[in-house]
Amino acid sequence: MSISDRRRRTKSSPIEAVAGNGLLDRRALLGRGAVFAGAMSTGAFGSVAAAAAEPLTDAPWSLEPGTTIKVYELPSRFEKDVVRTLNNPNGQPGAQGARTPHHLMNGAITPNGLHFVVSHGGAPDIDPDKHRLVVHGLVKRPLVFTLDALARYPMTTRVTFLECGGNGGPLFSPQPLQANLQALHGLASCAEWTGVRLSTLLEETGIDPKAKWFIAEGADAPHLARSVPLKKALDDAIVALYQNGERLMPANGYPMRLLLPGYEGNMNIKYLRRIKLVERPAMSFWEARTYAPILPNGKAYQFYLLQEVKSFITQPSPGLTLKEPGLYEISGIAYSGTGRIAKVMVSADGGGSWAEAALQEPVLSKAFTRFRMPWRWDGGTATLQSRAWDEAGNVQPTRAQFVAQRGELKSVPAVGVVLNHHFNAITSWGIDSTGEIKHVYA
Amino acid sequence: MSISDRRRRTKSSPIEAVAGNGLLDRRALLGRGAVFAGAMSTGAFGSVAAAAAEPLTDAPWSLEPGTTIKVYELPSRFEKDVVRTLNNPNGQPGAQGARTPHHLMNGAITPNGLHFVVSHGGAPDIDPDKHRLVVHGLVKRPLVFTLDALARYPMTTRVTFLECGGNGGPLFSPQPLQANLQALHGLASCAEWTGVRLSTLLEETGIDPKAKWFIAEGADAPHLARSVPLKKALDDAIVALYQNGERLMPANGYPMRLLLPGYEGNMNIKYLRRIKLVERPAMSFWEARTYAPILPNGKAYQFYLLQEVKSFITQPSPGLTLKEPGLYEISGIAYSGTGRIAKVMVSADGGGSWAEAALQEPVLSKAFTRFRMPWRWDGGTATLQSRAWDEAGNVQPTRAQFVAQRGELKSVPAVGVVLNHHFNAITSWGIDSTGEIKHVYA
Repeated sequence: MSISDRRRRTKSSPIEAVAGNGLLDRRALLGRGAVFAGAMSTGAFGSVAAAAAEPLTDAPWSLEPGTTIKVYELPSRFEKDVVRTLNNPNGQPGAQGARTPHHLMNGAITPNGLHFVVSHGGAPDIDPDKHRLVVHGLVKRPLVFTLDALARYPMTTRVTFLECGGNGGPLFSPQPLQANLQALHGLASCAEWTGVRLSTLLEETGIDPKAKWFIAEGADAPHLARSVPLKKALDDAIVALYQNGERLMPANGYPMRLLLPGYEGNMNIKYLRRIKLVERPAMSFWEARTYAPILPNGKAYQFYLLQEVKSFITQPSPGLTLKEPGLYEISGIAYSGTGRIAKVMVSADGGGSWAEAALQEPVLSKAFTRFRMPWRWDGGTATLQSRAWDEAGNVQPTRAQFVAQRGELKSVPAVGVVLNHHFNAITSWGIDSTGEIKHVYA
Repeated sequence: MSISDRRRRTKSSPIEAVAGNGLLDRRALLGRGAVFAGAMSTGAFGSVAAAAAEPLTDAPWSLEPGTTIKVYELPSRFEKDVVRTLNNPNGQPGAQGARTPHHLMNGAITPNGLHFVVSHGGAPDIDPDKHRLVVHGLVKRPLVFTLDALARYPMTTRVTFLECGGNGGPLFSPQPLQANLQALHGLASCAEWTGVRLSTLLEETGIDPKAKWFIAEGADAPHLARSVPLKKALDDAIVALYQNGERLMPANGYPMRLLLPGYEGNMNIKYLRRIKLVERPAMSFWEARTYAPILPNGKAYQFYLLQEVKSFITQPSPGLTLKEPGLYEISGIAYSGTGRIAKVMVSADGGGSWAEAALQEPVLSKAFTRFRMPWRWDGGTATLQSRAWDEAGNVQPTRAQFVAQRGELKSVPAVGVVLNHHFNAITSWGIDSTGEIKHVYA
């Protein structure tokens, strides 16, 4: 008899355990009937819901008219802490990062106000009527596109995540940094983008057969430039004009950005003003230095295009204390630059046993997939982990596997500084008997 | 030889016509190759893109640092007109409507800032820690839920549209009102919602077998109440806590609303504070009067729950002048409260001939589906229409079919006032030789 079989048999609850330390049958999420009512009748939900003995009382907002509806809506003042955290709030020279508060959100879409940003020159104030996109280099007919011109072309819409190559960088630290999910993995977001396929524009210009790469360049002051294999342009690259239905946000590339689904965030050039087809990559500053991850042997990846399969648990996570034993939902996000998520496994005992989480439909390629797993916290210690597989069979590595190949940092700057790139290993949350949640290595 | 065959044969373009007056093969949207380049070489694109003879010049925003990244992002100042229009901007007593500017948007998701609102008492300023949801009436165990309690339950996420029963009301007018899409159909939006299934909460309370309906009531001053068949609670009703990843917007029900996918907007009670299970509907003010559509014979629909299959063209549409003949994309939105959209047909000659539009994947049940169709405007008159079918076989009626059953209004208040309910017939845009677009009946 396995450990998980033994645990299952020793539980008296009507909800079937599927792995150690309280992970419950995920069909409890989907089924109907007496499952949760049954749980409550045995006390498993604790005081989640209270008996409704008293009549409803009218609060002040039930007795007076509300505020006038506005032309553009913003969150409630009670949500003032649900904002991006800034590593450089005064806009000093250098990078500015704004991180998504995943621990305070749910679903798969990141609203435009909270989409992460990494900026090397602030948000430019671009007049869309004066902005131009030039496509030139190894083409048959160089062309310049206005926004009005692009609006006439066939468009496409897709949901896709973007992730900074430096997201998760603090986990290169030899000791687990005490920071929350927003600080550790807040440089990834997911939105619905609409625009014109880059391949459509290249049909207009024609392609010289010698072209193998293209260089994309932004119109903001840093003129950030990256080299991209031409095959990506002919696959799923988009010149994006809309973000979740409205025009791009200023810090996310308004009025247009390059969208390379699944590729390193920095390559998705914002304020796109130039696509130049070339024979060889440009070896620009960003690709030759910052975004070339260094290996323990001193060599570096010259081009590390793809954001690989990854997941993390958003609830519970550090800062969200568990107030009492009982039933909870473990929920998180999984994604892969390769394609669809195939499976997410969850552990509550630090990898000792695993159970398969429910994936929220629709599971879209190169998009956030929300996973969920019911869990009964018994008030003892627990270590929560998630591990994702994508449809190509890639699996998220353990941290030990990852650092064996990629190395650790020996000294650790303050949290929030990007330490290294493309961290996609398992993240672990340790829970103690008070219900406090901490970042741990397990 | 049919008219469309004849038109096709007389065109010299390499893009195949599929219906009259310039509708083009929708595979032009999906394929790769010389289609659009070919189009340009024969002049079909006109001056959409200009030859890139001059070098790139640096605009002011290319020469100076941008603004500091903010904790919560808002659209560019150049998008200040992409806002909801208000019918009651000073918040006078009575309804306040805020309409989504679909003609200036693309994709399928409505961003939270632009989601439509109909409010009968403004937006209340609810303290989420003090808000309570009571489930009582014909249950075995009445319960009261705090927001913290709901956060522990299994959640679900889905994309769904909401539409006011009065959306499209101006089209009951015997003469086509000269208004844009936002005024005619701006009371429909689509978002990703996350929350707890109502069926999960009813598993907690238990259900008395006598219960057949429930009454949902809001916590704002109007205490808006609607009766809903209990079967909807056991099907796909959700107590929604998140809208596109963040907490609900104040005018959309913060901190929680009832979500009844596919049902009349007014029934999706905002600021939800009470679910009471009952034997018979309450015949509340709203269901007995305002949302009971009156028929030509003087009788009324007592409960008209479902928003039926519907579509409209967003681009081109009134206010978006065509500046020159050439290729354009016809794009729009289709949806059905019954399920998935199965097909959208588009006509450029007022219904004389039709061609099937491309549907943007994924096509989700009870959600906006974006459709697209390439079109060559020859500079003459055109009448654009779209017509949608859902997976149950329901088809959007022509306006003539619709008014034969539902009647017209004899006098017409100002645009923006709801004239009648559940208008889902075809909308037509007339284009003259100057490229101006008007609302017409065809």
